[in-house]
Amino acid sequence: MKIKRIGIITSGGDSPGMNTTIKSIVNYASIYKIKSIGFKFGYRGLILNKYKRLSNNKVKNIINLGGTILGTGRSKLFYTKKGREIAYKNLNYNNIDGLIIIGGNGSLKGISKFSNEYNIPIIGIPGTIDNDIYGTDLTLGYDSALNSIIRSIDKIKEIASSNNRIFIIEVMGRNTGYLAYYSGLALSPLYIVYNNEYNINKIEEYIKNNQNYSNIIIVAENKYIGNASKLIYKKIKKNINKYEIRKTILGYIQRGGSPSCIDRLLGFLFGKESVKKIINYNNNIVIGVKNNKIININLNKLINKKKKFNKNNLYNTYL
Amino acid sequence: MKIKRIGIITSGGDSPGMNTTIKSIVNYASIYKIKSIGFKFGYRGLILNKYKRLSNNKVKNIINLGGTILGTGRSKLFYTKKGREIAYKNLNYNNIDGLIIIGGNGSLKGISKFSNEYNIPIIGIPGTIDNDIYGTDLTLGYDSALNSIIRSIDKIKEIASSNNRIFIIEVMGRNTGYLAYYSGLALSPLYIVYNNEYNINKIEEYIKNNQNYSNIIIVAENKYIGNASKLIYKKIKKNINKYEIRKTILGYIQRGGSPSCIDRLLGFLFGKESVKKIINYNNNIVIGVKNNKIININLNKLINKKKKFNKNNLYNTYL
Amino acid sequence: MKIKRIGIITSGGDSPGMNTTIKSIVNYASIYKIKSIGFKFGYRGLILNKYKRLSNNKVKNIINLGGTILGTGRSKLFYTKKGREIAYKNLNYNNIDGLIIIGGNGSLKGISKFSNEYNIPIIGIPGTIDNDIYGTDLTLGYDSALNSIIRSIDKIKEIASSNNRIFIIEVMGRNTGYLAYYSGLALSPLYIVYNNEYNINKIEEYIKNNQNYSNIIIVAENKYIGNASKLIYKKIKKNINKYEIRKTILGYIQRGGSPSCIDRLLGFLFGKESVKKIINYNNNIVIGVKNNKIININLNKLINKKKKFNKNNLYNTYL
Amino acid sequence: MKIKRIGIITSGGDSPGMNTTIKSIVNYASIYKIKSIGFKFGYRGLILNKYKRLSNNKVKNIINLGGTILGTGRSKLFYTKKGREIAYKNLNYNNIDGLIIIGGNGSLKGISKFSNEYNIPIIGIPGTIDNDIYGTDLTLGYDSALNSIIRSIDKIKEIASSNNRIFIIEVMGRNTGYLAYYSGLALSPLYIVYNNEYNINKIEEYIKNNQNYSNIIIVAENKYIGNASKLIYKKIKKNINKYEIRKTILGYIQRGGSPSCIDRLLGFLFGKESVKKIINYNNNIVIGVKNNKIININLNKLINKKKKFNKNNLYNTYL
Repeated sequence: MKIKRIGIITSGGDSPGMNTTIKSIVNYASIYKIKSIGFKFGYRGLILNKYKRLSNNKVKNIINLGGTILGTGRSKLFYTKKGREIAYKNLNYNNIDGLIIIGGNGSLKGISKFSNEYNIPIIGIPGTIDNDIYGTDLTLGYDSALNSIIRSIDKIKEIASSNNRIFIIEVMGRNTGYLAYYSGLALSPLYIVYNNEYNINKIEEYIKNNQNYSNIIIVAENKYIGNASKLIYKKIKKNINKYEIRKTILGYIQRGGSPSCIDRLLGFLFGKESVKKIINYNNNIVIGVKNNKIININLNKLINKKKKFNKNNLYNTYL
Repeated sequence: MKIKRIGIITSGGDSPGMNTTIKSIVNYASIYKIKSIGFKFGYRGLILNKYKRLSNNKVKNIINLGGTILGTGRSKLFYTKKGREIAYKNLNYNNIDGLIIIGGNGSLKGISKFSNEYNIPIIGIPGTIDNDIYGTDLTLGYDSALNSIIRSIDKIKEIASSNNRIFIIEVMGRNTGYLAYYSGLALSPLYIVYNNEYNINKIEEYIKNNQNYSNIIIVAENKYIGNASKLIYKKIKKNINKYEIRKTILGYIQRGGSPSCIDRLLGFLFGKESVKKIINYNNNIVIGVKNNKIININLNKLINKKKKFNKNNLYNTYL
Repeated sequence: MKIKRIGIITSGGDSPGMNTTIKSIVNYASIYKIKSIGFKFGYRGLILNKYKRLSNNKVKNIINLGGTILGTGRSKLFYTKKGREIAYKNLNYNNIDGLIIIGGNGSLKGISKFSNEYNIPIIGIPGTIDNDIYGTDLTLGYDSALNSIIRSIDKIKEIASSNNRIFIIEVMGRNTGYLAYYSGLALSPLYIVYNNEYNINKIEEYIKNNQNYSNIIIVAENKYIGNASKLIYKKIKKNINKYEIRKTILGYIQRGGSPSCIDRLLGFLFGKESVKKIINYNNNIVIGVKNNKIININLNKLINKKKKFNKNNLYNTYL
Repeated sequence: MKIKRIGIITSGGDSPGMNTTIKSIVNYASIYKIKSIGFKFGYRGLILNKYKRLSNNKVKNIINLGGTILGTGRSKLFYTKKGREIAYKNLNYNNIDGLIIIGGNGSLKGISKFSNEYNIPIIGIPGTIDNDIYGTDLTLGYDSALNSIIRSIDKIKEIASSNNRIFIIEVMGRNTGYLAYYSGLALSPLYIVYNNEYNINKIEEYIKNNQNYSNIIIVAENKYIGNASKLIYKKIKKNINKYEIRKTILGYIQRGGSPSCIDRLLGFLFGKESVKKIINYNNNIVIGVKNNKIININLNKLINKKKKFNKNNLYNTYL
């Protein structure tokens, strides 16, 4: 059966590159005379039947926009059997032959549930700034977020050295320390807290002996690390007089902004590959990139495995 | 008596443009064979006698750097008679004939105290992102901070609309709402809280009827407004279901970054004017800009008056 | 007679802030239930009757976009009696009660001609990066262009010093040297060529004795200065061996990009004021800013006078 | 024999990331009590014996600076036997035990010549924005240049659509079309000319039928493509009336600016690996990255082979 209409959903947290992907899907699908319909605000749009028709003209200028023109969101209802029933009804009602979901681990899990109950090609694209999806070297938005982080912290470093201050800076990364770790390598901080194996005494020591590093400590804000920044803040404030200590959270600017070149390339290639898979009636696939090649990841594998923290090169001790 | 050596101090909070000013002072003073010495970390450097010699070569590449190569700081000791005694001794010891202080209201107050006790030309330059110094239209760093704020909030706006979220964003401005108000005009938010006359009910109403504005509320973080963002956050969270509410603080990136063109021009012109005043043995003057002209502000007047909030054009109600 | 429909035109060269102005006009006019129609590609849209309806919703997200959603252009036909006849017919046909033109000197001249023949309120807003319009301290887009220039040249300066090279950099400024001069003050170059009174021998001398300045020469590219960069390039290449000489033109990036904070504020205030004037059936007025206040400039005066080069502070010799 | 002093050279064209690499080398070498000396302006510094001592303190703040603190340059003398003799003398005179050269193909060729004549460990690091070095997926500076290009062209695209203009934009890439091709994918232009197999008639056709693409044509400026932009410009100007055609060269901003996150990571890892190799007395090696892993490339292989144009995914025709 020929594919004539594709549905597109961006789900979970925003990530730069989502719009580029939407444009790539719409453009490539149109070569095969396939129409694209975008459901709004994640899976919620599927359930509430809220959508907008996407034409080449509509996506003409979105290639460099952050965020997503479809909106994202989280839908508790979609994770219930009843909710998915409604969703499927709406897909039929709109003659949707295939679905492309762009989102993080939670959203990709949603694909799995839906796939088990209904027979319709659904392809996933890894969209999250956290880069915590198994099987792919990069996720859409990660490189952009890294660059947003380092540009912001470059500015804070100027102030830190001006002021004899130490800044404890929290960066995003819901479950993993990737953003903290790799932005850290690019910033030469006093210390990076990217998992729960940090050593407060060592941090104190580095501060006292610091000659070569800028006065910043980067902390991944995620549940496994807990309130590391509070603990470090208290300890340093108590034991070290020479410096003033400041705590700051980088916040939502990490999720926004125009996508970097890599994220636009990924958006372009991921979008194109996802349409090819739909056309071939493939299912249970998440598009990814490994060793610079676009690959297909088995969805079930992806859901059940956790991405291991991969430090390309061991980051040795500070001196 | 001929001026041969000038001391430079950057004091209080950082502001972009301080380095440009330092360079301008050093370059212009050297035309008159006057040497420049920079004291480190604000008035503290004067008391601890910590300084670095500044030559044309040393300041060659700092014109576009944020922060200040001399560091800033706050010194409680300088605000005591004893502390100023030590400071004066160090000025003599280093043969400093005149002082230029770049800082905010607090730092300029320090000049006044010192001037009353010792006879040495001291000129002030208004350096703070808050633009809250009486007698001058602009302070060094204000325009740069405005631009940092709008670039950051541009990114957050993309996410807000993607997510059906409302963001309450706190911006800096210790005692006044200038940064909040004017960045607000440039961002078209739902509401700007720039003083303590805000109306939570109206905010709720605007959110419910919002058609034309982006989903952001800008709040000046300062003591007169108190914890407005917390109150607004709670009220909205309680009464409005349609949106998710998020609170974020822009933080220290507002103080950093390369100075904007205006701040570099002000740095250049303020620096030059301050040296001219020192050469003429003037005192009790703070350099400023009014109606695009460089002016001299009487220090005593500046200290005793408060800058009135000047909204060039009345900002009417939102629709 | 009550104003019910306003036409908006952006004409001549793009300048950042045009979209902010369009949004301000549409929003403010809507408070008075006035509809806005935007004619496309400058006066050409008036003659070809090409337009788009502008609602609050349509301009919701354009406040930070460079360029103009209406397009700009130059129309030879509009400067003929016949062309203006057609334009007037179209205005009547569309029930346009007043016109707002955003553009440079050429476009504002167009208003004058039209005003002499037809009785309809037309208000001008000075939109050009050149800042060469008589009677106003600033034009829309000037501050943004200055900042684009200094950010680009900051990057080139890093390369110049890395390479023992001298860069001759051409910046825009059709008839005046404002952009060259003021960006120059913010960059500390070897030399600024902003009018035809430059001295090649002095330039050579500065290069040979250069200790304090970066290796860049800024040249305004305009007809009065002629091919200064070619002449300087040849002379230096011939006489100086120590450095490699490179010539580069900054180009169109100076006209693009998101408007700076000042340009957004001007856009907001200019737009609002222009609607007020239309409502009052005023004519022959160009909105401007002088000494930080929004003013009205008499159109005839503006057209017949040339803006004098105003260097707030004399830029002395280089050392 | 123990390595005690390492020489560092940055050679050829600047590329963002060079400073990050210098810092990484200095820091890592110091862990092993190895001192670093930086020779200035490429191989020329070796011949003229111009250098500066590099300590951890000296490189403390350079991690995010574009350009190179050592300067680069090209030295014809080094490519002669006599020149290399002088170079070797100077290495001995300064007790240099090993050399690290950061540069492009030309500079790496220089290593080969030197290695054949003298026995001293020399390690190469691929530093060029062109990404045209055999054996490595990425070179230092390529990602930064791509991002500089897309940010600049994003701005020009706004103007192009405002103006009914077509822009022909030349980007760098001395021998290959990588920068043009990959920035093109990220920009969705009308056409990309990245090699000499372009079709002017097709370009004309795309312009006439353009609905979905922005009005820009990207051309790689390199000798194999010749003056493609001139030819295209003439043809379009002659045959197409609807649009104005403009030609612009992006220029040197592509080589400057703060390095992107990837280039800082590469700088960090390349620097570290190069020191490890020197310590092990390795030779004839160029550090590279392949499939995300840091690798060693055989120098002779690298010099004799040409990097094939690798388009990860076939870029199909425009519609």
